[in-house]
Amino acid sequence: MSKDAFYKLFVYELQNIYNAENQIVEFLPVLINAASSSDLREVFDHHFEETKSQIKRLKKTFTILGENEGNVFCPAVKGLIQEAKDLLDLGAYTGPVKDAALIGAAQSIEHYEIARYGTLKTFAKDLDYDDIFDLLEKNEMEESDANQTLNDLAIGGFFSAGINQKAMK
Amino acid sequence: MSKDAFYKLFVYELQNIYNAENQIVEFLPVLINAASSSDLREVFDHHFEETKSQIKRLKKTFTILGENEGNVFCPAVKGLIQEAKDLLDLGAYTGPVKDAALIGAAQSIEHYEIARYGTLKTFAKDLDYDDIFDLLEKNEMEESDANQTLNDLAIGGFFSAGINQKAMK
Repeated sequence: MSKDAFYKLFVYELQNIYNAENQIVEFLPVLINAASSSDLREVFDHHFEETKSQIKRLKKTFTILGENEGNVFCPAVKGLIQEAKDLLDLGAYTGPVKDAALIGAAQSIEHYEIARYGTLKTFAKDLDYDDIFDLLEKNEMEESDANQTLNDLAIGGFFSAGINQKAMK
Repeated sequence: MSKDAFYKLFVYELQNIYNAENQIVEFLPVLINAASSSDLREVFDHHFEETKSQIKRLKKTFTILGENEGNVFCPAVKGLIQEAKDLLDLGAYTGPVKDAALIGAAQSIEHYEIARYGTLKTFAKDLDYDDIFDLLEKNEMEESDANQTLNDLAIGGFFSAGINQKAMK
């Protein structure tokens, strides 16, 4: 009985992140258009393509489980996207400062997804769905890499100034 | 000019996390009451006290900067809290399964805060506010520890079953 409830929670959380990824794939073009730096635009563009693959992997998990995509709405990602929109709507920031703000907002979204995939992975492991675990891990790794790339872009490296440094000039 | 805009973004993001922490401190009693496991209740209770200290540290950053707490509203945390409320409102989950769901939702909130404090720390460093950097780092470490404790509670250890295991029985 309790195992059945735990399984239902697992499906619910999968449907939740499925909705989240779909909201994100709709929002990424806004970030791509808003970015000033071509490097940042490229990172967002790359992540747009990755997100489409992540949605396909989530569809596979539903096929494996014999479940459907449901109609769960993820209010967390709606709020995270709204935060980024608020920053853009303020209109107070341009160029590298706006980029620095966008990177921060995008990293919040990545962190949310890392948290969710982390939870879902432990659920998949507990419920013995090794193939689903692997699909979720692929998505998690892409989110983690995207977060790291955004970090590097903000902070810069030995040979190149980061966007934050440019934002202060 | 651009440095000034970057400073303004820094203050805006501080005001945003200040509002987020205030929303969280209001919501934590809901989590404390909803938790079935006494261990989980204790973790939420401890984090409730920590969050009050974090708010005090953020107030200190405003004092250092000569700024006020503003009236920025953080839609991201509102959404993250709504996600936890949706899980509770479903009423479909009880006992350890509900606890497993609450842990996941709480970890999403922790991850959001870790992301925000990470961004704010790089801004503080770039703008040469070492004392603010230290205050933000304290907050970030508490969030990170809380996230780890929740993880351990879900997964369990060598001598004790985790909440996820209990959820499957």
